[in-house]
Amino acid sequence: MTYTMTNTTIYVCTNCKAAEDTSPERAGLRLMTALESAIAASGADIRLEGVECLSVCKRPCTIAFSAPGKWTYVYGDFTPESAPETILASAALYAATDDGLIAWKQRPDALKKGVIARLPPSVSSPKAPEIAP
Amino acid sequence: MTYTMTNTTIYVCTNCKAAEDTSPERAGLRLMTALESAIAASGADIRLEGVECLSVCKRPCTIAFSAPGKWTYVYGDFTPESAPETILASAALYAATDDGLIAWKQRPDALKKGVIARLPPSVSSPKAPEIAP
Repeated sequence: MTYTMTNTTIYVCTNCKAAEDTSPERAGLRLMTALESAIAASGADIRLEGVECLSVCKRPCTIAFSAPGKWTYVYGDFTPESAPETILASAALYAATDDGLIAWKQRPDALKKGVIARLPPSVSSPKAPEIAP
Repeated sequence: MTYTMTNTTIYVCTNCKAAEDTSPERAGLRLMTALESAIAASGADIRLEGVECLSVCKRPCTIAFSAPGKWTYVYGDFTPESAPETILASAALYAATDDGLIAWKQRPDALKKGVIARLPPSVSSPKAPEIAP
């Protein structure tokens, strides 16, 4: 499936460490890699940005969705193995909204249960500089 | 004390409800009101924005600091009675940074213990439009 998500960014905490994970590579980094592959395979025009730490260390793996002028959402409790498709489909729902608010009935369970925080549109749309005509 | 904090916004969740709080007015709204008074008394040139819900319902009261081009931080566990001065002093530390990162040693305990999440500078500084000279 191809998603159109211009202006939407998925942030992934690459520092997230899963409980009892013995892998030498952190779970967050593995999620990042898996998402890169999923995005490439889907052909989605979405921005993916790895972040050193989203400071949600108790609920790995953590991600966020943001786009200029929309609510920014932070979600946790994802696993690198199962999450990429869910995240990509959720990002498509987010991208399809005007304001970042996905209707409750539409939300995948992972979004309903995994929400960590959200920030209002003014965070991602600071006042544009005034330009003289 | 007067703080100079142009471009910095303090977000306050006005929907936060304190545990066992029987006040008819929600704790978040009382925090908002207390912060308005503290800001007016201090003469700080800071922006205060009430938000219907920051989706951090388990750790009231919740606030956030944001400024264009800086890391955005979400913090919880504040009380309307004791928090305004701490929040205002913390916002001043935040405003004084170039990137939103307050050195660990400088951080008040409330920030060390209360962090909920953070988001990188690209969230609050989408690409500026190019302006021809």
